[in-house]
Amino acid sequence: MKLRCLDCAHTFPPTLRYACAACGGILEVVGESGLEPPPGLPAGMWRHAARLGVTDPAAIVSLGEGETPLLRAPRIERALPDFEGEIWLKDETRNPSGSFKDRAISAGISKAIELGARGVVCASSGNAGASVAAYAARAGMGAIIIVPAHTPDGKVTQIAAHGAVLLKVPGHYSRSYDLAAALAERHGYANLTTTFINPWAVDGLKLVGPEIRAQLGGRVPDMVLIPTGSGPLVEGVARGFAGAARPPRLVAVQAEGCAPIVRAFEEGAEAVTAWGMPDTIASGISDPLIGYERDGTRTLRLVRRSGGTAVAVSDDALRAAMRLLARGEGLYAEPTGASPIAALPRLLAEGLVPRGAVVVCLITGHGFKDGRAYQEMPARIHAVPAPDDLAAVARLCDAALAEKE
Amino acid sequence: MKLRCLDCAHTFPPTLRYACAACGGILEVVGESGLEPPPGLPAGMWRHAARLGVTDPAAIVSLGEGETPLLRAPRIERALPDFEGEIWLKDETRNPSGSFKDRAISAGISKAIELGARGVVCASSGNAGASVAAYAARAGMGAIIIVPAHTPDGKVTQIAAHGAVLLKVPGHYSRSYDLAAALAERHGYANLTTTFINPWAVDGLKLVGPEIRAQLGGRVPDMVLIPTGSGPLVEGVARGFAGAARPPRLVAVQAEGCAPIVRAFEEGAEAVTAWGMPDTIASGISDPLIGYERDGTRTLRLVRRSGGTAVAVSDDALRAAMRLLARGEGLYAEPTGASPIAALPRLLAEGLVPRGAVVVCLITGHGFKDGRAYQEMPARIHAVPAPDDLAAVARLCDAALAEKE
Repeated sequence: MKLRCLDCAHTFPPTLRYACAACGGILEVVGESGLEPPPGLPAGMWRHAARLGVTDPAAIVSLGEGETPLLRAPRIERALPDFEGEIWLKDETRNPSGSFKDRAISAGISKAIELGARGVVCASSGNAGASVAAYAARAGMGAIIIVPAHTPDGKVTQIAAHGAVLLKVPGHYSRSYDLAAALAERHGYANLTTTFINPWAVDGLKLVGPEIRAQLGGRVPDMVLIPTGSGPLVEGVARGFAGAARPPRLVAVQAEGCAPIVRAFEEGAEAVTAWGMPDTIASGISDPLIGYERDGTRTLRLVRRSGGTAVAVSDDALRAAMRLLARGEGLYAEPTGASPIAALPRLLAEGLVPRGAVVVCLITGHGFKDGRAYQEMPARIHAVPAPDDLAAVARLCDAALAEKE
Repeated sequence: MKLRCLDCAHTFPPTLRYACAACGGILEVVGESGLEPPPGLPAGMWRHAARLGVTDPAAIVSLGEGETPLLRAPRIERALPDFEGEIWLKDETRNPSGSFKDRAISAGISKAIELGARGVVCASSGNAGASVAAYAARAGMGAIIIVPAHTPDGKVTQIAAHGAVLLKVPGHYSRSYDLAAALAERHGYANLTTTFINPWAVDGLKLVGPEIRAQLGGRVPDMVLIPTGSGPLVEGVARGFAGAARPPRLVAVQAEGCAPIVRAFEEGAEAVTAWGMPDTIASGISDPLIGYERDGTRTLRLVRRSGGTAVAVSDDALRAAMRLLARGEGLYAEPTGASPIAALPRLLAEGLVPRGAVVVCLITGHGFKDGRAYQEMPARIHAVPAPDDLAAVARLCDAALAEKE
């Protein structure tokens, strides 16, 4: 195994390294450990330990991440006019800390431990921080998590519960990013920020693809829709389907209020430029990429190479998607997690979904993470001060059940 | 398959029936469907469809519940003075709606659909309601959920998100219970309240036992600690280990502020009597049993028959257990979910845990469900108004990391 620069192809030994020493480019893990799945681990992605980068089984920190359910979405299919095909939901909310980040963090922290790290740092919009806090607790390591001051309460509470040192930084996510890199160096901690900065963490995302394929009975989907901040999950899915005869087209979904990759895609640009002022309810993908625009450019290339596209969705479309998921399919997702569902009508309207297509939507984060988004929606909550008046309560229920939503 | 009264052994055909028509006793499911696991379902407990009560595969509503991880708890083991043995955590927070209730509700709603129910009703302290709301949404059925007015916001938001009609009733849980039974009858809906009232739902809990056994490599644990309201989960675990050469001793854990079963156990009483005024942060087991005291009596008998015990824990012990789980093991549990950990020191002090014992703690509900309980704890959250002053931030981190907790 080694690390290799995506830009200049320089290679480096398998250490904790966050950029190419020759050109500053993004590093990727080349090779796989071949490790026998160690006994005693909970079920989940480490069943495929051989494909990941950890060579010392004692270093593995697992809470049973990965191997999440893939659910058919019949009501979403019917809600889309003229859709013919299959919509599947890859339910990443079912990971230990409630988001797909657990895949990256389990892989990244395990490799960091193998390589001697004493603690971990992570800049996060919330979900990666919650994941790092949980896995650091499990590993008994110190953790410093840096989040924007406006991070939803549900995520802040979760991070603090695991005992991490939590720093709230004013302004957008990119300011947290810089501080994390500096603190990691200063403290001798591993940087587990889930942009493209930690190649071992990014590598942990690649098992999503093989899982989907196995769950589809060996079929490769035609399209995979991916909530996208800087885009390591796009990289993970691309890697996971590498070698398939016809890999899926990858669709990067961003919020209209923070869409640097979509903007570059639509302009036909070669490179992604930073976004000025993020403004969206989708905190998980609210990443302006300031200072690491190259991550967005990497994602842009992956999307283009796959024959896919990049689309931005409005906050209203996100809310409608959350409702459709929760009320139609029984899945409770945070705004970011529902973004692929919000993107579907656009893709259909633009003729980008072929007849009979098998479409997989990655539902990346749990609704618990950001309850506020739901609390602001209309709901059928009724106070019943006199529950003994059964006739009155029954009438109330009849009326509520009949309500046009 | 049939339903049989636990008290008078009268039997009934497999229909929607909530009490023995002869004597009013609790009904149990006798027999198993033998159903081949239907293709196309997500991984989880329906892999063992043959052992459950549903005979029509088209009626099954699944979000991929059950088959939750079993995690060793080394830091909890070390935190217990003089403990020698193994502590394992059965992480039921990983179910679709964040609690073990999904097992019961998936089984119960599926059978209700098979038997022609048009909708579902559930009285709940929050978790069962959230589960019913999610599964009813998945099934496309109407749902009426009745909760006490003081139910934590996280649970209320989740129930409402899935589009259920949510009634908030003043006072304790038992008032919701009566109203649910009345509304189910009036609307022709199935009652999925997760006391002992719905035998098909209770029957869905029995797979916890075989899962634990498989995860322990075929070993049967010596003790299983179970957060206990009325106690269907105690019944589920007992059934799951029925037939083992040496079934585990079952420990019913209640909160000091609502402990009707513990009180009866300690008094050596034959029957459980209702609790007057519940007062605990453990909303999930805050059930005074008013009007269905027989459920508590059933649980009391199961505990005694197993050679186990019943213990009550204080709110302070619950908070300490939540911290130990979250900071020591990386698990984020609501107060009820942490109650088995809170009970461990008491059991050890009373000499009830033999040397070398294999102890399984059921961690029943997710911390997301009740973030308030964590928000009130001390945490290491720091606002960093000037992130560019790296030296100052690094000093802050050093101090925070060194803090004696």
